[in-house]
Amino acid sequence: MAKIARILHNNQPTHALVESEGFRLIEGDIFSSYKPTDTIIPTNNAKLLAPVDPPQVICIGANYRKHCIECNAPIPELPLVFFKLANAVAGPNDPIIIPKIAPDNVDWEAELVIVIGKKCKNISEDQVDAHILGYTCGNDISARDVQLKIDKLWGRGKSMDNFAPIGPWIATDLDGDNLDISLTLNGETRQNSNSSDLIFSCRHIASYLSHSMTLLPGTIIMTGTPSGVGMSANPQRFLKEGDKLTVSIQGIGELHNHVINE
Amino acid sequence: MAKIARILHNNQPTHALVESEGFRLIEGDIFSSYKPTDTIIPTNNAKLLAPVDPPQVICIGANYRKHCIECNAPIPELPLVFFKLANAVAGPNDPIIIPKIAPDNVDWEAELVIVIGKKCKNISEDQVDAHILGYTCGNDISARDVQLKIDKLWGRGKSMDNFAPIGPWIATDLDGDNLDISLTLNGETRQNSNSSDLIFSCRHIASYLSHSMTLLPGTIIMTGTPSGVGMSANPQRFLKEGDKLTVSIQGIGELHNHVINE
Repeated sequence: MAKIARILHNNQPTHALVESEGFRLIEGDIFSSYKPTDTIIPTNNAKLLAPVDPPQVICIGANYRKHCIECNAPIPELPLVFFKLANAVAGPNDPIIIPKIAPDNVDWEAELVIVIGKKCKNISEDQVDAHILGYTCGNDISARDVQLKIDKLWGRGKSMDNFAPIGPWIATDLDGDNLDISLTLNGETRQNSNSSDLIFSCRHIASYLSHSMTLLPGTIIMTGTPSGVGMSANPQRFLKEGDKLTVSIQGIGELHNHVINE
Repeated sequence: MAKIARILHNNQPTHALVESEGFRLIEGDIFSSYKPTDTIIPTNNAKLLAPVDPPQVICIGANYRKHCIECNAPIPELPLVFFKLANAVAGPNDPIIIPKIAPDNVDWEAELVIVIGKKCKNISEDQVDAHILGYTCGNDISARDVQLKIDKLWGRGKSMDNFAPIGPWIATDLDGDNLDISLTLNGETRQNSNSSDLIFSCRHIASYLSHSMTLLPGTIIMTGTPSGVGMSANPQRFLKEGDKLTVSIQGIGELHNHVINE
């Protein structure tokens, strides 16, 4: 099992292996073949970036039963598919930005994120593992007013700048369908579940999507969020400047982001 | 006014100026600065590609009044925003592929496409022209059953492979808000309008989107389709193998695509 980070080194984004001494640079391409080098960058000297620059950001909504219940949404019969845009992708420790255009209902959604390793189309569930590079943590930030009341279509309210932080790195050789996932807001646990509770499993989602569209190397699939979002809390709790969010997933690590105003 | 194509030259995608003798290669980057070279590739020796490889594919739905009426859709009060994925982008003369997963309700939508030239956020309508590189033709291919009956969210049914052909090239220095647009199916006119009939003008759309998200160089905005889609024809007419589609827009040119089965 490897952990593959993307760091800013000499002002260039570069992939590196996460080791106890720091980030070990690699030669080659994480999507074809690579080998470790002898160069280790001390952890404190490297800025972590989003672990990939994804050509496609595909998301699944309403994929945990308790989250459907808390949102008064029906249990879906098929995966509920929507997309985010490139400007939404952010990295570990990057700010989540409360947009001026929709400042009042910005919510969190801890998600397990599949990272596609190999281009694929029409693959079966059995073939999915061979086409996945690994998994990372994600936070599907959502302006609920825009998503649910103003647009109804889910794109714009979930694709504002920095609305898709991912990281801290990609963990390989995990069983994505049995991982603890949690989110804390300012240290307080708000979401706590396991990906075995997914209505549509990681393997099912990747296979299902591949029958509609070619999946590309580096594409990320955000697999849905467990119950415990701010919109459904009593009282409701939306993000505000100064908040600190941490998404933790078993076998991967912790994705930290803080909240600022645009 | 220039016409900027993207062609395959020595197996590399490269931008070139469209001239009567052929494609004149350029030096530099169409998004910063470039100059013409002395090399002209004869038209017959070059394969046209999608004129950009867009980092974001943003679409506006229900943006012509008569199209709303033919679809029994309300006239929107705000631009209806959705996205397509990178795998959907195709070029001139590329096939439109009827997907095995949804073969029966694949429809056309001729659209004027804005190509963003400069990164921008929070720009006014007056600032839009300075941030646009130009315009091209597009076809927002849509599996109506997936879009409207199965998913309701519009992503998957509009993002199957090759569901967003664009081209043949980018025309600069046009007034996007007053261009004739038409589509023929096997030579018969099916759509015929002018972009002055847009509910939300090109300048309005680009400004509106820029208040929600940073727009990136090469991003395309598909501005909506006029009336005359296959779903609303009497009798209904959906695409089938062998069909030939042409989108024509005043001042730009013609985008030709043919239909094949997956």
